[in-house]
Amino acid sequence: MINELYKQRLSAKSVIRELSEYATARGAEIGYENVFDYSLGNPSVPCVDGYTKAVIHLHETLSPMELHGYSPSLGNTKVRGIVADSLKRRFGIPYETKHIFMTSGAAGAIAHAVRLVTKPGDDVLTFAPFFPEYLPYINDSGARLSVVPADTKDFQPNLDVFESMMTPNVQAVLINSPNNPSGVVYSEETLERLASILRKKQTEYGHDIFLISDEPYREIVFDGKEAPYPSRYYDNTISCYSFSKSLSLPGERIGYIAVNPKATDADILAVICGQISRGIGHNCPSSTAQLAVAEVIDEVSDISVYERNRNILYDELVRLGFTVVKPDGTFYILPRALEEDSIAFCNKAKNYDLILVPADNFGCPGYFRMAYCIDTEKVERSLEALRRFVQTEYSTR
Amino acid sequence: MINELYKQRLSAKSVIRELSEYATARGAEIGYENVFDYSLGNPSVPCVDGYTKAVIHLHETLSPMELHGYSPSLGNTKVRGIVADSLKRRFGIPYETKHIFMTSGAAGAIAHAVRLVTKPGDDVLTFAPFFPEYLPYINDSGARLSVVPADTKDFQPNLDVFESMMTPNVQAVLINSPNNPSGVVYSEETLERLASILRKKQTEYGHDIFLISDEPYREIVFDGKEAPYPSRYYDNTISCYSFSKSLSLPGERIGYIAVNPKATDADILAVICGQISRGIGHNCPSSTAQLAVAEVIDEVSDISVYERNRNILYDELVRLGFTVVKPDGTFYILPRALEEDSIAFCNKAKNYDLILVPADNFGCPGYFRMAYCIDTEKVERSLEALRRFVQTEYSTR
Repeated sequence: MINELYKQRLSAKSVIRELSEYATARGAEIGYENVFDYSLGNPSVPCVDGYTKAVIHLHETLSPMELHGYSPSLGNTKVRGIVADSLKRRFGIPYETKHIFMTSGAAGAIAHAVRLVTKPGDDVLTFAPFFPEYLPYINDSGARLSVVPADTKDFQPNLDVFESMMTPNVQAVLINSPNNPSGVVYSEETLERLASILRKKQTEYGHDIFLISDEPYREIVFDGKEAPYPSRYYDNTISCYSFSKSLSLPGERIGYIAVNPKATDADILAVICGQISRGIGHNCPSSTAQLAVAEVIDEVSDISVYERNRNILYDELVRLGFTVVKPDGTFYILPRALEEDSIAFCNKAKNYDLILVPADNFGCPGYFRMAYCIDTEKVERSLEALRRFVQTEYSTR
Repeated sequence: MINELYKQRLSAKSVIRELSEYATARGAEIGYENVFDYSLGNPSVPCVDGYTKAVIHLHETLSPMELHGYSPSLGNTKVRGIVADSLKRRFGIPYETKHIFMTSGAAGAIAHAVRLVTKPGDDVLTFAPFFPEYLPYINDSGARLSVVPADTKDFQPNLDVFESMMTPNVQAVLINSPNNPSGVVYSEETLERLASILRKKQTEYGHDIFLISDEPYREIVFDGKEAPYPSRYYDNTISCYSFSKSLSLPGERIGYIAVNPKATDADILAVICGQISRGIGHNCPSSTAQLAVAEVIDEVSDISVYERNRNILYDELVRLGFTVVKPDGTFYILPRALEEDSIAFCNKAKNYDLILVPADNFGCPGYFRMAYCIDTEKVERSLEALRRFVQTEYSTR
């Protein structure tokens, strides 16, 4: 019989996807260039040239059996070594091949990580604002996700509330920095204090508590800064990475898990991921994509457009009187809506062809997300619509 | 804490993988060309030229954002249409785009199919001999796999025993034709009778029973024949396909689910698969691989080598006195071992550098599998080793 659990979900459509579909439909009417579509986090800059060249070169030079044969179950061994070396070089953590497990993007990585360090019935905590897909990622594994409410002052994790929500049944904590949807980078101070609470609770409860660190935006940080690397602050960290955003390859589904070498059982966690794969039908990312990203392992697409867009939007939002935390990175911003009901707010915005996403599903009712991975020229043209929207709907005069 | 269920599995290593690793290690000693490695089902013929050309052409002509952007959650819509049209043309079933869900190979397809039509605690039946990965595929979803014992006469499913094993808790039946490991194609008569039992039981139990048909070897059939297409015999069929074997692309992880248009809720089953994806971190196969297979949708690699190898091996095995069913397709053959303990038999074979896989894990103790997806020249050279092995170890003189 058809599984009713999944069937019932069909009635609860994804808000982001609905808005994106609306934007496409509206674009068919008035020209998509006239729809200010801030709905989707699909990178708007090309992948680095080296990736394209690597794919073509691989197809021209390797035998098809070598290129398209089965990967070993933990991923191409040479590629895992290249990933380990790159991380070691960049973050000073002595990763080796055995700590790396290749995955189909961050979604694949988190699907493995949660099954690796929890069993059905265990609790996982995350911090609002959070990526709504964490709910199926965690809950469908049998664990249960609870959300620490947002500290809207600066969107750093609310660690006081977090500490009060910890119980012996919490086996994992899931974080995302740079953060979707706020764009905020968790500070060193935040990560140090989070680690210290986790260490204390590990001792108190007498069991490991793992930190699952979701890092697809790791390289997309502005003002010449770098995001503190969570695994440097806490040994029991499983880093989940995707090349989707840094290399603009979301369709290729390529990423990895990196196990901190000091984590409990660090030497076998990637091997256990191979066992988890068997049950969820994962079986490695594309062999070609693995080899090709290895050729450009330390490169990043030209992400300057995201910083430019951030600056333009942030300045205008402040000018228009929005309460808004300045993003440190990603291509998202999370302003407070101008009325309490952010769904109503975003619905009204549609009349100005502004596609904004209410952040209720991100754990931040009253706020809305703008994904500014679009052309700067369009961001600039959208400002007039934004001004008209605010002045017409929310002017006190 | 680390999940003990998966951790404990590490002690039970895959027999196939262990033998394959042994073959590689032995090859390092004596030259891999001297190891008659029949362990792995990795295609030994190149993918069709059209695939390579399509990948290069896509990278040279499409914008990177178009090529590497997120696929819609059910797969590239145009590609789904091309798959539907191809199946319609070939099998006369009126598939449409909405019946197709793109997956990361057959493993990804089965992972979705089992969650689609069972819930935890439900029973699934399959037929020995069977691919051992079905155990984690099914059991890790929460359903339970039971195996109908083999009919070693011809390796057609044992339908009398099957009927006696049916209970109202069986929600799905999993079949694999052409079959790994026997190479046998399920006959029209088998599929008709299976369908008739399923229809009868659906009425008796008052609920749907789905047939999950695992078909990665669908095109690898010998003697100019074609494998009967299971979905033509039974409406509630979910076909699980992979391009891994027919196009020799196992590393690219590309396949699909095709829902029979007459299945219950046929119009929404692919959409429900999209919901299942969210929890297992699937999120579509590679966008490039989807577009490239669409360019060669009706092509098959030159598989004549497999038929040639089948003929050589089958004839020699018969000559040497083995009990063996002649494979109709795939690149496997499943002879009976010359002693009751097939593990002991395969261990002795290693002394002759013959790497044979005991079929105990395939539900056929006393038998062994040979994967003859290797060069014909090597198959021919292996015959002398096979003869020496049999004459030395099992000669009655």
